Amino acid sequence: MNLPQNYVRIFDTTLRDGEQSPGATLTSEEKYEVAKALSRLGVDVIEAGFPAASPDDLAAVQRIAETVGRTVPEGRPARPLANGDFVLEPPIIAGLARAAERDIERAFAGVRGAKHPRIHTFLATSPIHREHKLRMSRDEVIKRATEMVKFARSLCEDIEFSPEDAGRTEPEFLYEVLASVIEAGATTLNIPDTVGYTLPHEFGALIAGIKQNVRGIERAVISVHCHNDLGLATANALAGIAAGARQAEVTINGIGERAGNTSLEEVVMTLATRHPAFGLQTGIDTTQLTRVSRLVSARTGMVVQPNKAIVGANAFAHESGIHQDGMLKHSETYEIMRPEAVGAQKTLLVLGKHSGRHAFGNRLAELGYPLEGEALESAFARFKLLADKKKHITDADLLALASSETKSAPEAYKLLAVHVSCGSGLPTASVRLEGPDGSELTTAAIGTGPVHAVFTAVDSLVQAPAELLEYSINAVTEGIDALGEASVRIRVKTEGLRDDAQFGTGRSPVFHGHAADTDVIVASTKAYLSALNRLVAMIAAKKGESSVPRVSAGV
Amino acid sequence: MNLPQNYVRIFDTTLRDGEQSPGATLTSEEKYEVAKALSRLGVDVIEAGFPAASPDDLAAVQRIAETVGRTVPEGRPARPLANGDFVLEPPIIAGLARAAERDIERAFAGVRGAKHPRIHTFLATSPIHREHKLRMSRDEVIKRATEMVKFARSLCEDIEFSPEDAGRTEPEFLYEVLASVIEAGATTLNIPDTVGYTLPHEFGALIAGIKQNVRGIERAVISVHCHNDLGLATANALAGIAAGARQAEVTINGIGERAGNTSLEEVVMTLATRHPAFGLQTGIDTTQLTRVSRLVSARTGMVVQPNKAIVGANAFAHESGIHQDGMLKHSETYEIMRPEAVGAQKTLLVLGKHSGRHAFGNRLAELGYPLEGEALESAFARFKLLADKKKHITDADLLALASSETKSAPEAYKLLAVHVSCGSGLPTASVRLEGPDGSELTTAAIGTGPVHAVFTAVDSLVQAPAELLEYSINAVTEGIDALGEASVRIRVKTEGLRDDAQFGTGRSPVFHGHAADTDVIVASTKAYLSALNRLVAMIAAKKGESSVPRVSAGV
Repeated sequence: MNLPQNYVRIFDTTLRDGEQSPGATLTSEEKYEVAKALSRLGVDVIEAGFPAASPDDLAAVQRIAETVGRTVPEGRPARPLANGDFVLEPPIIAGLARAAERDIERAFAGVRGAKHPRIHTFLATSPIHREHKLRMSRDEVIKRATEMVKFARSLCEDIEFSPEDAGRTEPEFLYEVLASVIEAGATTLNIPDTVGYTLPHEFGALIAGIKQNVRGIERAVISVHCHNDLGLATANALAGIAAGARQAEVTINGIGERAGNTSLEEVVMTLATRHPAFGLQTGIDTTQLTRVSRLVSARTGMVVQPNKAIVGANAFAHESGIHQDGMLKHSETYEIMRPEAVGAQKTLLVLGKHSGRHAFGNRLAELGYPLEGEALESAFARFKLLADKKKHITDADLLALASSETKSAPEAYKLLAVHVSCGSGLPTASVRLEGPDGSELTTAAIGTGPVHAVFTAVDSLVQAPAELLEYSINAVTEGIDALGEASVRIRVKTEGLRDDAQFGTGRSPVFHGHAADTDVIVASTKAYLSALNRLVAMIAAKKGESSVPRVSAGV
Repeated sequence: MNLPQNYVRIFDTTLRDGEQSPGATLTSEEKYEVAKALSRLGVDVIEAGFPAASPDDLAAVQRIAETVGRTVPEGRPARPLANGDFVLEPPIIAGLARAAERDIERAFAGVRGAKHPRIHTFLATSPIHREHKLRMSRDEVIKRATEMVKFARSLCEDIEFSPEDAGRTEPEFLYEVLASVIEAGATTLNIPDTVGYTLPHEFGALIAGIKQNVRGIERAVISVHCHNDLGLATANALAGIAAGARQAEVTINGIGERAGNTSLEEVVMTLATRHPAFGLQTGIDTTQLTRVSRLVSARTGMVVQPNKAIVGANAFAHESGIHQDGMLKHSETYEIMRPEAVGAQKTLLVLGKHSGRHAFGNRLAELGYPLEGEALESAFARFKLLADKKKHITDADLLALASSETKSAPEAYKLLAVHVSCGSGLPTASVRLEGPDGSELTTAAIGTGPVHAVFTAVDSLVQAPAELLEYSINAVTEGIDALGEASVRIRVKTEGLRDDAQFGTGRSPVFHGHAADTDVIVASTKAYLSALNRLVAMIAAKKGESSVPRVSAGV
């Protein structure tokens, strides 16, 4: 596609680099849901996963390629072409691969079902990585990179190559590697600041140097991929774009390994707000940013702090503080963006207890959750229950409801009933579950608090090797009768489980559970059970397959 | 004090600009606690508040000036001098003032008790502010600024001046204003990017222009004050420092209005990690960063997202993912900072149920909570109770305990007992409080969930015009028997309360409550009651004074 010179491609890696955040692991269903939202938002490329990492990753990428990669959802903005036309196409679906034949084959197996597939392969180029990790010479690195790009190109026309740790690579050698892979068929060159160490002027200079010195660079798109260890990911990405990069690798809410990646919303809104300074455009519909941010936060369990730029709860809290009586004669005095531009306006009281199935379904679709059939029926039934309990039903309530409906870890254990008594006296919980064989399991337990009592009771029924890492509850909607959303993260208990081959070293598996209910104890129980069900499913799956440790990438 | 040319002063405004975050309002006791922690951390200047905003603000600043401003706490690092010596002094205590005599007198009344007091006064200089907010001509702005700086200088030797919205001011006019206020006696010139609109190279150029073009600039320190609306606050502050600024105005965790301020930890750690690039130093003891971050988060109720740079829970989660089996031959391949450098190491199992009062008190003091007398006794009693319930007591548990002990809103209503029954069936709560007159108040209520039931019961006893804004619970320590920390934010119900003179327009008062307990329902009840007590105290105070709307500043 012949995009305009001033068009910056948004390459979203929430599902690959973002999902590498400790505890952010998503189910295949959740990945599909996020991918749909990203397509609707208008991203150009969705990096759907790292297919060689595990069979589950491969299956999730395949599913996204064959669905999201083949359709244009309602609401997806058209992209401008250099000739002034506009075009509506599904996003490119990318799969990550180390520079090895097996990885590349797997990546292609993942993305080939998409209308626009891309293979993204990487190899470290810095002296410290060549010496300590790869044990390869400069010539060996060039040989491997070009051979693997050629191999990938034999499968697929759209090839991205990343020189890992580019920022610490000798410039002349970096230019040589890049020229060789362009020659071998790479169409996008992604420059990662792998350790988040670079300052904006340094990163800008790195990109400018590449643009100036790499043979054949006019045939490829330069991409930037920055990490946030020093809080500079957005500034670095923008410096790279100003120096000539035309693709930015980003994640929603800036999630990712350690301090995360460049955040999509910050880069996109800076380019939009400061359009006269950059003169660049993206294909993103910014009014969807707040909704997608909230979806990713709920699915990954990674909270967004109130003072997060663009999507934090306070990001547009102009009214408090500054705008004093008599001070505000002109809104531009303090505002540079309008909340509506990122979809942060508040919609209150959209539906009440007398609203019908049709109005309910329509409103959900408008909010980006087009539920159908059984899922719609079940969400509608829960809506009616909620309307009996709660006076005002807001969009946030509806999102929480729909959100509980679309999650779907395989449910080995189902919650039938829970009762808790606590406060003064011994916190006591009684729990009834339906087990994997359909039998009813019941027990009671005491704990140091109601949640401890419930989790102890559930543990004694499920008996999985789980260890609680994090637990939080948030009231998601305003008012005292708010819906409570509970998030739980657990990991496999490692004590007495040193069989590294089972789970892969380095990555101790973490599972996340999420649920909403007006009763926080019920929400907590459901969230915990959902996390346990994921863990139980993984253990069952591991028993049935040969040991393939999951791998993640340092790009 | 003659500091080295390469020394960057850290001016912390957590207690002024940070506290302007919606809902982050702190009590005088909490401000004092944070100020002590900041002094120990090694900040050069503590902006303790805006004394003209309210009598409470004035009293809080006075208290900090007379205590934290007069002593050097154990652990505060010595500052280097230009002659190679080191000096240990209390921090400068600054108070903010609009450019008006009454404000400046109030500010001085606030800070005069400190060994090193500073008055910080500001006036907008941009055309849009001159025209729409101030309705003043250029000449009037210069006249007002110089007169007020002269007046402030007649009271105090250390004067900081901020031209509000400097980034949108005509450069020549800005230079003229700054030269005039230096002539009038200003010793620090603070350049704010009030609306968070500037890009790093623009902000760097602004500072470079000031350094080059302002008459007498060699007699003053240039300071930077950036906002994070586009996610660029850290990059902008660093660009200003690289261009010659030698003071950075920052907050812990980057809290503040809207998307917040530059975060202290990001600027300090970038200068430290990239020392060869900048060649600059600060006086901060970086190993205290994680602890102070946690303290500010707990006191303000502003959560820190896991992917926050430097202080997020995942910031150093290197072990997950990248460091694969066989990959890690050399730690520098992926690490640029060590967790120990910011105090992020985990200390487990420091105390058990057989530990004595002495060991407990010592450990708390090491953690930065030197409790004494009754507060120590009460915390120790709670520690013993906790040790009965919980096998492993970690530093995080101790911090949560100590933290509950040192908070202190005036307690009009005290919790005597709470009991809850929920899950299947009607969620029901019974609550017993002690009222302001010592009487016992008891009631029961049903709700949509246990928290709703408890809050409804408390509401019917306290009868304050409160509206719940946010409610969250976090398990602060690892393990299933973790201590739960509850945070509640409420605001005065505005419905039917249009008497703007009572609370000031624009700033609808928000109150925050915080409590820890192994029982999340008990923690929630305490947190809600603590927020209500603050609201009740404010209403009582308002009745006793003339209407002084609280003002906040756009610097």
